[in-house]
Amino acid sequence: MLEHGGNLDLAVQRFGGRAQDWIDLSTGINRQPYPVGEMPHDCWSALPPRSEIESLHRAAQQAYATAAPVLAMAGAQAAIQLLPRLSARGRAKILAPTYNEYAAVLAAAGWGVTEVSALDELAGAELAVVVNPNNPDGRCHAPAELLALLPRVGLLVVDESFADAVSGLSLAPEADRPGLLVLRSFGKFYGLAGLRLGFALGHEVVVAALAAMAGPWPISGAAIAIGRRALLDREWVRATSARLECETLRLDAAVRSLGWALVGGTRLFRLYETGDAHAAQDKLARGQIWSRIFTQRPGWLRLGLPGNETEWARLAAVLSR
Amino acid sequence: MLEHGGNLDLAVQRFGGRAQDWIDLSTGINRQPYPVGEMPHDCWSALPPRSEIESLHRAAQQAYATAAPVLAMAGAQAAIQLLPRLSARGRAKILAPTYNEYAAVLAAAGWGVTEVSALDELAGAELAVVVNPNNPDGRCHAPAELLALLPRVGLLVVDESFADAVSGLSLAPEADRPGLLVLRSFGKFYGLAGLRLGFALGHEVVVAALAAMAGPWPISGAAIAIGRRALLDREWVRATSARLECETLRLDAAVRSLGWALVGGTRLFRLYETGDAHAAQDKLARGQIWSRIFTQRPGWLRLGLPGNETEWARLAAVLSR
Repeated sequence: MLEHGGNLDLAVQRFGGRAQDWIDLSTGINRQPYPVGEMPHDCWSALPPRSEIESLHRAAQQAYATAAPVLAMAGAQAAIQLLPRLSARGRAKILAPTYNEYAAVLAAAGWGVTEVSALDELAGAELAVVVNPNNPDGRCHAPAELLALLPRVGLLVVDESFADAVSGLSLAPEADRPGLLVLRSFGKFYGLAGLRLGFALGHEVVVAALAAMAGPWPISGAAIAIGRRALLDREWVRATSARLECETLRLDAAVRSLGWALVGGTRLFRLYETGDAHAAQDKLARGQIWSRIFTQRPGWLRLGLPGNETEWARLAAVLSR
Repeated sequence: MLEHGGNLDLAVQRFGGRAQDWIDLSTGINRQPYPVGEMPHDCWSALPPRSEIESLHRAAQQAYATAAPVLAMAGAQAAIQLLPRLSARGRAKILAPTYNEYAAVLAAAGWGVTEVSALDELAGAELAVVVNPNNPDGRCHAPAELLALLPRVGLLVVDESFADAVSGLSLAPEADRPGLLVLRSFGKFYGLAGLRLGFALGHEVVVAALAAMAGPWPISGAAIAIGRRALLDREWVRATSARLECETLRLDAAVRSLGWALVGGTRLFRLYETGDAHAAQDKLARGQIWSRIFTQRPGWLRLGLPGNETEWARLAAVLSR
């Protein structure tokens, strides 16, 4: 298992307490989730019918402002698992540092994997991966820059797991270009990671290949019911975007007194250079607040946003100790 | 898309009405589902933690009476999608006729696929598939017969999607033998196909390979919460098994006056030789009861069990017209 945020098991093992007592800021998952509401009875019992899956696809097209072919999957991760099989094995280049599953999944499937540090260096790859905005440092690339890269690579995968609420950044409207695949997470922005829902948008050839590999019923009835409702609820999206925008600034301000420097971030997490991330993580953990650190970067600590005033108060108290 | 049961869209297209007015007997899904109850709040919001997934695995081991390595997946179908990658491409043999996804998935991935009609003919395959009991005809093979085949094939996949409530048939207790993979559906017997849950049990090498391909979060939080509770609820299993046992006989009796001959079946569906399956399907469909027919077998009609007395009465009325 690779290191990931969201693994409270590890926090409990190392620092004790019960999982439910911890505030998990180790992920970029919105802690004010979309209200799930009542489930329709048959979302549990019936196999998801094709017509329901298609209506979810239309909702996603509307939400992501695209007419490109779309495929609902069990999280963006489900698409990542299938990437190695989208084309003949070759050379993959990944704009790094980034989400660690890309390199791992591709290498495990026999791809040659190179991590590069500038967009230009992706040229020549059979498969190129850009996470935009990037996890964990928030680095962004304008759509035009990415489109310029398109003719220079075999397949360009743009992971927009943290692109919700960032206007003008998404390539979704252009996703049907040959050689392009855009991945969207649902669970992070909507705060419903346990639902396992995400979307692949891209050229019809790529989306059809993913659909064939994912099989006839890749997502649950609950994912269809909740996902469709949430994607079409533009008022909730607007309110949530505004709230997150304000609260990222609030988090940056809250850690300023400790001398942590903002490296970057998105609306859902912030990355700080702390000087000593282990010490910083331990300090937070003593107040049962879990954070994410990175083996390769001894100073980096990533923090998600507290979900309510009680959590903000606990964070303030821990930081002031 | 292959033909499958459970596609009410097709019934509505051809015969009209609203999906919710139909009684869907085109699948082998129990129509008296396990009571879902309240979901724990964090099953939606949090990424499923490793410890929760492991506790579901332990529940499955207990329910299936095995100490073999187990992997929860998004339905048995999710395991089928990954079968072509469990070993180097070669010759697959499938005991046929059976669930049509095996041949399709393997052929699409470049495997040579042969359908055979007797267990013995599976010998020599790199990958051999037996659905036990078989869908749609209910044919069964004793564990000893299947184990005898094990040294004569590369990997033996035994799909036990319809083995719940059939005592002594399951190979789950022996699933950790080298070269064996047992697949269990959750959604069919428990009537929760929309949850997308199933299990792979097998030798540690095979299960580890599936786990790596399935990725870190292959199932939803709801699947963990409901699955664990249902698998450990032995009283519900006993009562349901008994009910299904009686009701299969009731269904066989109900169609007898039409002269349909029982080909075979399981506790969850029955297969009848009707002489003219299109006519039989149309007759049922005029009463908004949906059934499954098979392109290759013009007389075969498969029926699931009605879920309550209202449904039984509607079926009786339709059959008597």
